[in-house]
Amino acid sequence: MDIRTIKNRAKAVRNQLIKSRIDALILTKPANVTYVTCFCGHDSWAIITGRAVYLITDSRYLLQARSQCPACTIIQRTGPMNQAVADLLNRLKSVHTAGIEASMSLADFRSLKKAVKIRLKPADNVIEQLRSIKDKAEIAAITTAANIAAKALERIKGRIKPGISENRLAGLLEFEIRSLGASNSFETITAFGANAARPHHQPTNKKLKSNDTVLIDFGVRYKNYCCDLTRCFGVGRAGNLYKKVYDVVTEAQAAAIKAVKAGVRICDVDTAARRVIAESGLPVFGHGTGHGLGLEVHELPIVSDKAKGRLQAGEVVTIEPAVYIAGKLGVRIEDDILVTERGYRILSRNCPHSFRP
Amino acid sequence: MDIRTIKNRAKAVRNQLIKSRIDALILTKPANVTYVTCFCGHDSWAIITGRAVYLITDSRYLLQARSQCPACTIIQRTGPMNQAVADLLNRLKSVHTAGIEASMSLADFRSLKKAVKIRLKPADNVIEQLRSIKDKAEIAAITTAANIAAKALERIKGRIKPGISENRLAGLLEFEIRSLGASNSFETITAFGANAARPHHQPTNKKLKSNDTVLIDFGVRYKNYCCDLTRCFGVGRAGNLYKKVYDVVTEAQAAAIKAVKAGVRICDVDTAARRVIAESGLPVFGHGTGHGLGLEVHELPIVSDKAKGRLQAGEVVTIEPAVYIAGKLGVRIEDDILVTERGYRILSRNCPHSFRP
Repeated sequence: MDIRTIKNRAKAVRNQLIKSRIDALILTKPANVTYVTCFCGHDSWAIITGRAVYLITDSRYLLQARSQCPACTIIQRTGPMNQAVADLLNRLKSVHTAGIEASMSLADFRSLKKAVKIRLKPADNVIEQLRSIKDKAEIAAITTAANIAAKALERIKGRIKPGISENRLAGLLEFEIRSLGASNSFETITAFGANAARPHHQPTNKKLKSNDTVLIDFGVRYKNYCCDLTRCFGVGRAGNLYKKVYDVVTEAQAAAIKAVKAGVRICDVDTAARRVIAESGLPVFGHGTGHGLGLEVHELPIVSDKAKGRLQAGEVVTIEPAVYIAGKLGVRIEDDILVTERGYRILSRNCPHSFRP
Repeated sequence: MDIRTIKNRAKAVRNQLIKSRIDALILTKPANVTYVTCFCGHDSWAIITGRAVYLITDSRYLLQARSQCPACTIIQRTGPMNQAVADLLNRLKSVHTAGIEASMSLADFRSLKKAVKIRLKPADNVIEQLRSIKDKAEIAAITTAANIAAKALERIKGRIKPGISENRLAGLLEFEIRSLGASNSFETITAFGANAARPHHQPTNKKLKSNDTVLIDFGVRYKNYCCDLTRCFGVGRAGNLYKKVYDVVTEAQAAAIKAVKAGVRICDVDTAARRVIAESGLPVFGHGTGHGLGLEVHELPIVSDKAKGRLQAGEVVTIEPAVYIAGKLGVRIEDDILVTERGYRILSRNCPHSFRP
């Protein structure tokens, strides 16, 4: 990340703070800290004031902070976080009110409140809202993550054979992602047969049969940015029900993607997918149709029937409708979509849907 | 986990609730939810009352909850979590005061407070304290995790050669862990040469040289329980400074492990390690000497110079002193230690310290 981008982000945050009559914003959520500082370690908080961006960290991360955060004032704490933050805030004469994030824990809030002399005020989603619109470098990073995902899946193709376990398949995929210089953005889901009816199945030692179905939901983190893909395919003869379900989910996903465009009501994108499945007579999935993607694998906007807003150009969302039939099968197809003024761009287009091991 | 264990856990929680005059405890931290319900998915809360243990989840996890939680009343929410929890609490006539965890977010607290008619009262660390003392099955799971870690490291031995990257090495190790039917308990740290001076280094594409040093900090999750190990070794000629540092860290770790026994002040264990390093003239590490291990990779008790309590039989802690010299090297040696009445048992003893690729 170049220093100019980081400075522009701080400026955008400050504009929000002025509107909310807040002199400083305390960031505790790791992805938000990364967004304004470039620091990608843990257990570190950031504070944005009208003049500076501070990163409060400890000895474990000091070298990392120094190399990652040229635009920040780095403070190494030796005692508890709340005390280090309070010491700084109490020292800054221009700070009378500090904003705190909704994701802050009650424990952190209580100990911070006890230590500071200034006023603390809720400032929810300030960074999350800014993060939802991606710039060119962010879109490039997500695209590269998706390309690495596609390459990793292609590389393991020849090794998906009857007898392989869900665990080993997940391991193969994660190894190829590592070999390609990245890491996984969340715990890989590999589900055979009826296991795929559990949307968030955790891999087991179950082995692939000669006639079976596979669901792989996986993601890559590249330069801190995440992609999130799901592919399903049959091994041997997959059966007619599976084929029917697969076609319906494909159609549902295409309908939702086609609906994506800046200005469109988010709930309408959700409905586009859901309607196709409902009309087919198959059970409609219980989760949302998708979610934002970026520094976190789940971020704003949430694509669901309850979503109130409209899509904005620069947002990146997953579109992942599904059909789950308990005890039988699950099919989910998931791609990563950039919202544009004219419509959309599929960032995961290099990962083919049709997959034959 | 057998139902009796789960029922005993609920009973132990209820004893605490009676002491604190709380009618129900709302659990939001995933590991705490797992501890009282056996459920190991996400986005689900548990509520313990005098009569029942409720798991509030959604459609994504319903099948999983049904198979993992025979001792719970499972509630499938379709709306927001706070509303589902409030509906339940408002319906239970015997609940007037509910305890909430310190790890709950401000957002969850605010929305829950708005929705419930009963009193909410802080109930910090109720489950964390119970979790710190492990039963036989938990100790067995951590031991198996450590044995899998040892086996995975042994399997990749022959492949650690000059030219391999930190990323690829991490990938190899994680693949073997998967192949052995488990998963990693945190993001693997592989650090070559001076990169090891960053305690929480994130793997890069840096390649191993013919004369180099390697630090691997990795963990295995088996049946939900974590181990956490660090091994360091040289490749080719490692240099005299490295050898000196390695010997000092070995001695520091041995001193701390020797100090472990039920009833001993935790800070004394920390001091035992720190003193050896200080006396050698090498720089003393800035982090704690260790931490508890179990459903989470960091849990109670924290082994640091600021720790106030005493070790208790049944606790499992890491002992991981280190020496970091910026720009040159880092050596950390970490094992998982069970505290017993008579002293200790090294659960990670099957993973040898002396390692030669």
